[in-house]
Amino acid sequence: MTPTQEKLLWRETFRVRSYEIDSKGKLSIQSLANYLMEAAFNHSYALQVSVIHLNRQGITWVLSRLHIQVERYPDWMDTVIVETWPSDKNDSFALRDFLVKDKAGRVIATATTSWMIMDIQTRRPVSIPEALGDLVYKEKDRAMNDNFDALPQLEEFQIKKEFNVRLSDLDLNQHVNFLNYIEWAIESVPPEIWKQYILKDLQVSYRAEAKLGDRVVVFSEQKNEKENKEFVHSILRANDNRELTRLTSCWKSK
Amino acid sequence: MTPTQEKLLWRETFRVRSYEIDSKGKLSIQSLANYLMEAAFNHSYALQVSVIHLNRQGITWVLSRLHIQVERYPDWMDTVIVETWPSDKNDSFALRDFLVKDKAGRVIATATTSWMIMDIQTRRPVSIPEALGDLVYKEKDRAMNDNFDALPQLEEFQIKKEFNVRLSDLDLNQHVNFLNYIEWAIESVPPEIWKQYILKDLQVSYRAEAKLGDRVVVFSEQKNEKENKEFVHSILRANDNRELTRLTSCWKSK
Repeated sequence: MTPTQEKLLWRETFRVRSYEIDSKGKLSIQSLANYLMEAAFNHSYALQVSVIHLNRQGITWVLSRLHIQVERYPDWMDTVIVETWPSDKNDSFALRDFLVKDKAGRVIATATTSWMIMDIQTRRPVSIPEALGDLVYKEKDRAMNDNFDALPQLEEFQIKKEFNVRLSDLDLNQHVNFLNYIEWAIESVPPEIWKQYILKDLQVSYRAEAKLGDRVVVFSEQKNEKENKEFVHSILRANDNRELTRLTSCWKSK
Repeated sequence: MTPTQEKLLWRETFRVRSYEIDSKGKLSIQSLANYLMEAAFNHSYALQVSVIHLNRQGITWVLSRLHIQVERYPDWMDTVIVETWPSDKNDSFALRDFLVKDKAGRVIATATTSWMIMDIQTRRPVSIPEALGDLVYKEKDRAMNDNFDALPQLEEFQIKKEFNVRLSDLDLNQHVNFLNYIEWAIESVPPEIWKQYILKDLQVSYRAEAKLGDRVVVFSEQKNEKENKEFVHSILRANDNRELTRLTSCWKSK
């Protein structure tokens, strides 16, 4: 059963809650990413291809890449509308894009994501099931033209910061929640930058999973000293130096 | 202007989101506490006595005590209704109680909280303003009869666990969010207990504030070996041994 094209576009409304703001009083990038994931989950649930549906077949969705560009962070109590749709797919990856709008319909953020299907037993990627073949919304361009080329490698780090995985960092699969890598990368950025600049562009490449008891090390490199502050972040597991996640962040002055 | 009694009862509906569940697939106690705080904030905002309103007078609300009893944790996607009302006050403290219900109206959790007013400049408690005198809902009994007697002192700890304060632990006032103390206390409980038991009763007494860069130490003592597992937790700041928070947790078998 192929859903009609109109069912492939999903809209969900959020009101920024008191506990979703950061220490600047704006919706935190973590909460924004949570809104994206919530809308994506609810859409996939409505389409009967959510993690809950796939788990019955022994497979699950795994987030591979995430790219968020933020125009403006909403304030506490603002209404935020997330539009999301499956934007493309090939044998290995399914893409899902996002437009985040304010109440007046102005775009305040755009995002694109790339997802793999993993076999739960073997923990290895498998092909995107053919049944998902028709699930591409064709009425809309990508929210952002990103081919998900490899993120730049860290060359020379100036910052090193270590974190212990906490119980509250874990998701339903007992792995570290995708958001924590974002939090750790942000925390590695010098305080004067997150005080005076705004995170405008965040790219994340997920590579391996961390578990409870792991210790993770964030290495961060500031790329230049121009108007914008750009960083490459590499997050490794301390005990075997396996790279778990690579990120880039770009901060613009307020 | 005194609001009518009916305005002193607030109802707010939440739907359990994908990122609000714990590693067992149930609404986490942290997210439940967030729901309580969100409903409390929105109610106080409607009554024009929220932190935002008080800040204009140089004062703010500070959570002093929290007691949550959970009958049953809702599932992902369940609808949860939080009822809250100002339940009592004296010169030093204002109480706010909570009933958490499922869609069918069955109570799944109860909670009570005690709040102080703090002068933002001096960081010292001040009397509850007289203008708040009429803000007590008299139509309903307390959700739970708790006089907020002092929590038991830790006698002999079996567990010691250390945490570094993370950037993402901070709230708008640059202090550690009240939830983190709960997370840290829970994480100090042995894994076999949070795997096989359910947190049924949680009491928290807030005493002092931690900041970014602080290292906190959780000491936990298991009180007995009866059917229920009971703990006393004391969270100290490492550099001056100041007690920041004291908690008790009671876990019942599933």
